[in-house]
Amino acid sequence: MKRIRVFAPASIANLGCGFDIMGLALDEVGDILEITLSEGDGLTIKNESGVPLPDDIEQNVITPVVRKFMEMTGNKAQVDVVIQKKIYPGSGIGSSSASSAAAAVGMNALYGEPLSEEDVVICAMEGENLASGGYHADNAAPAVMGGIVLIRGYEPLDIIKLPVPGDFYCSVIHPKLVVSTKEARSILPKKVPLHDAITQWGNVGGLVAGLCSGNIGLVGRSMRDTIAEPYRKDFIPGFDELREKVLATGALAMNIAGSGPSVFSLASRNDIAKKAGQVMNRHFDALGIPYESYVVKVSNKGTRLIA
Amino acid sequence: MKRIRVFAPASIANLGCGFDIMGLALDEVGDILEITLSEGDGLTIKNESGVPLPDDIEQNVITPVVRKFMEMTGNKAQVDVVIQKKIYPGSGIGSSSASSAAAAVGMNALYGEPLSEEDVVICAMEGENLASGGYHADNAAPAVMGGIVLIRGYEPLDIIKLPVPGDFYCSVIHPKLVVSTKEARSILPKKVPLHDAITQWGNVGGLVAGLCSGNIGLVGRSMRDTIAEPYRKDFIPGFDELREKVLATGALAMNIAGSGPSVFSLASRNDIAKKAGQVMNRHFDALGIPYESYVVKVSNKGTRLIA
Repeated sequence: MKRIRVFAPASIANLGCGFDIMGLALDEVGDILEITLSEGDGLTIKNESGVPLPDDIEQNVITPVVRKFMEMTGNKAQVDVVIQKKIYPGSGIGSSSASSAAAAVGMNALYGEPLSEEDVVICAMEGENLASGGYHADNAAPAVMGGIVLIRGYEPLDIIKLPVPGDFYCSVIHPKLVVSTKEARSILPKKVPLHDAITQWGNVGGLVAGLCSGNIGLVGRSMRDTIAEPYRKDFIPGFDELREKVLATGALAMNIAGSGPSVFSLASRNDIAKKAGQVMNRHFDALGIPYESYVVKVSNKGTRLIA
Repeated sequence: MKRIRVFAPASIANLGCGFDIMGLALDEVGDILEITLSEGDGLTIKNESGVPLPDDIEQNVITPVVRKFMEMTGNKAQVDVVIQKKIYPGSGIGSSSASSAAAAVGMNALYGEPLSEEDVVICAMEGENLASGGYHADNAAPAVMGGIVLIRGYEPLDIIKLPVPGDFYCSVIHPKLVVSTKEARSILPKKVPLHDAITQWGNVGGLVAGLCSGNIGLVGRSMRDTIAEPYRKDFIPGFDELREKVLATGALAMNIAGSGPSVFSLASRNDIAKKAGQVMNRHFDALGIPYESYVVKVSNKGTRLIA
């Protein structure tokens, strides 16, 4: 019998312009999995968190991740998982990715790391597919690897870890509104105006150049989304006014986290991030919408074993 | 009376994935302008090159550039331009941009550089607008500034000079096929599939990351165009087979230069660039299509005064 505990961080996908191809890992906030391996062939998942999870094991993202790992490595065992989930499903800050990343990294650790980091991401993407009906890596890759990550392409998977210039702080708020990833994807048009697409890839270029060269101003002015935000911001009451107030604190940018409804802003100073966080809290207080909020650093650490 | 001579390089826009937002300057190949300033108020343009240019001065790209410079700086003079054009109009390697850049940089030099480099690009873009009906900077900016350039956005103009990692060599071939920039733009759809747009901005991110980190392999595999190439390659006989042969030489990528019909490949070694150039020559020889071809370095030098 072998047992480990794994922490996997929350993550934010898209980063404004990088729809489906960029994401970053957050510090501190995340899910903890305890995984026990013993002789046999089976899987149990026990939810010890206050966060509700599906009773049907086939609907839990951990299940396809563990199966994919076993399939890729040719192993067989009794796997018992205890989950302490801190990230609410549907929050938009990589809830399914954190559990999937923890399962993938944990299984790989239990077997002595037979898989490369990229293959671990591929395992974790099975959980994403169950949660949102698509093999996305923009949460799974930063959750596994930490830092800010670019998914250059999917065929084959090409993950580029980008430099994080100095300290970056995220103010994240999760207003308790129900928006499923599937729903948030389905409202997007199948075709987009070429002009908007050009604006988007100009911004992606600017964001990557800003990160690589440590040009914080360029990072901020590049984090704009002309593609998904015009549709998705309608899920978030007062989105435009909120952004105006958040940017007035000196924050570099404010965007929808992943497919929402969480919203995040980025700042290069902790005091600005705190102010931006307060502005966000007051916004949803005034609307009478309950929320959870955090001010955390962008973390270069991804999923890791803990004591 | 004051007189100067200016050299402006040819340039390649788009670089595969960076449609409308990226471009690079070539070494050696370019246009030379001699500009004479004297008392009065007027403009003459004399064409001393073998390259045909419109007789109507209102149709010459230099005219709106000079006017824009005078308007921006509040000056008035008799301007006499003698042009030695080396780049064929319609070649796709920044013919109009080179003349426009030379005029803008030359005027700015004659008046003691009252305009910033970015404002010089804005002047040069007037020539682009006359030539192709749009204010594009993806040839004009690299022609003025040299190197590899990202246009993050146009409102306001935000030009980012990217690092050129080591030596890059371009093999460029201009098959003598008539494709106007206007025509090449008009065949593009107004809307593009979201899936293809995502692929494109993943590649833009990869290309910028590759340039910034000196990852040549990443540069090569990012230089793919899912948006314009599927339409524009039909102008170039045997495009797909040509690319296969060019990539077999070890070249990093092969793409349409700007809106075509020129084609270019990129290599990190001169001998590979020469081989790729020979493959291109043989391809159009076999088709009986006349061409001009060059193997030149990517230049960090933009438009400059010459003796």
